[in-house]
Amino acid sequence: MVRWEPGAPERLQKAALALFAARGYEQTTATEIAQSVGLTERTFFRHFPDKREVLFHGQHRLVEAFLAGVHDAPPDAPPMRVVAEALRRAATFFPDEHRPHSRTRQSVIDQHPALQERESHKLATLTETIAGALLERGVDERTAALAARSAMTVFEISFAQWIRDGERRSLADIEDQVLGELLALNTPTV
Amino acid sequence: MVRWEPGAPERLQKAALALFAARGYEQTTATEIAQSVGLTERTFFRHFPDKREVLFHGQHRLVEAFLAGVHDAPPDAPPMRVVAEALRRAATFFPDEHRPHSRTRQSVIDQHPALQERESHKLATLTETIAGALLERGVDERTAALAARSAMTVFEISFAQWIRDGERRSLADIEDQVLGELLALNTPTV
Repeated sequence: MVRWEPGAPERLQKAALALFAARGYEQTTATEIAQSVGLTERTFFRHFPDKREVLFHGQHRLVEAFLAGVHDAPPDAPPMRVVAEALRRAATFFPDEHRPHSRTRQSVIDQHPALQERESHKLATLTETIAGALLERGVDERTAALAARSAMTVFEISFAQWIRDGERRSLADIEDQVLGELLALNTPTV
Repeated sequence: MVRWEPGAPERLQKAALALFAARGYEQTTATEIAQSVGLTERTFFRHFPDKREVLFHGQHRLVEAFLAGVHDAPPDAPPMRVVAEALRRAATFFPDEHRPHSRTRQSVIDQHPALQERESHKLATLTETIAGALLERGVDERTAALAARSAMTVFEISFAQWIRDGERRSLADIEDQVLGELLALNTPTV
């Protein structure tokens, strides 16, 4: 359908992020984003309903990565082993070369309550989706809810660490550590 | 300041909930809420900035209950013991006679995305506050974040169970069980 503009969504996304960071999110229009990479406003709106959605483009692939991890875990794996697999798979969605992009995206989101709400909603939906996938594996409802929320706790804390200034470890390595800390925290020491 | 109207906020809150549930949140005005208990619109706005806030009245007392639990835990209690204490204290905020009220409130919130966002924001702020109180106890930042999020996971799942149709156990009892399930889930079984 848009064969004559290969990679248009990705180019628009990259341009949008650069403009949001340089000029501010409110001050940037869809037309300006499109023009900055030699595309038209019409092309912009063929790919995105509004400029906010540029920041959330491709997020279904993150959901798919989590789900692939849940589905591929061995059938007899206990819930937190399944969660560990899902986190590992999700980390492949954020290779180290994407770190600067993720940092910029997060700083734009952090400055705008409407974007924060959209992001929170995205993460809440992701939590429900993971819980649903655990249910399908035969995990009971309560355990599925606890495990899915624990997965998101580890993911969000690890992601925030991954984009911190000076952090050089991979997201997978950070997740491993944070998951270990969560397990240690919840293991009775007496 | 409003000595001549003892309990006005509570009366307005009760009336608002009854009207929201009976007629719908959108269809109910602040004036109607006030009039239904023989008060004026002016009195309503002396207590609440808008009708949405009626649903969140007194929530600082829930925050205070959580914090009291964190502060009163023995100085050497490990983080999840502190969390258990905070959850126990928070449960006193929801005695069984409040269950019908909480059920109605939640059903109104569940029907309106704007109220869900306000509620999510409230819970996110509460999580940050608990993490801050743990930091003050000398808990490191990462552990404080993990423990605070685990506390909210247990609280939210327990609260949802407490208001389910037919549930008769106290919130404290449900929290105990859910916390135990979280600990069991996160304890390596191998």
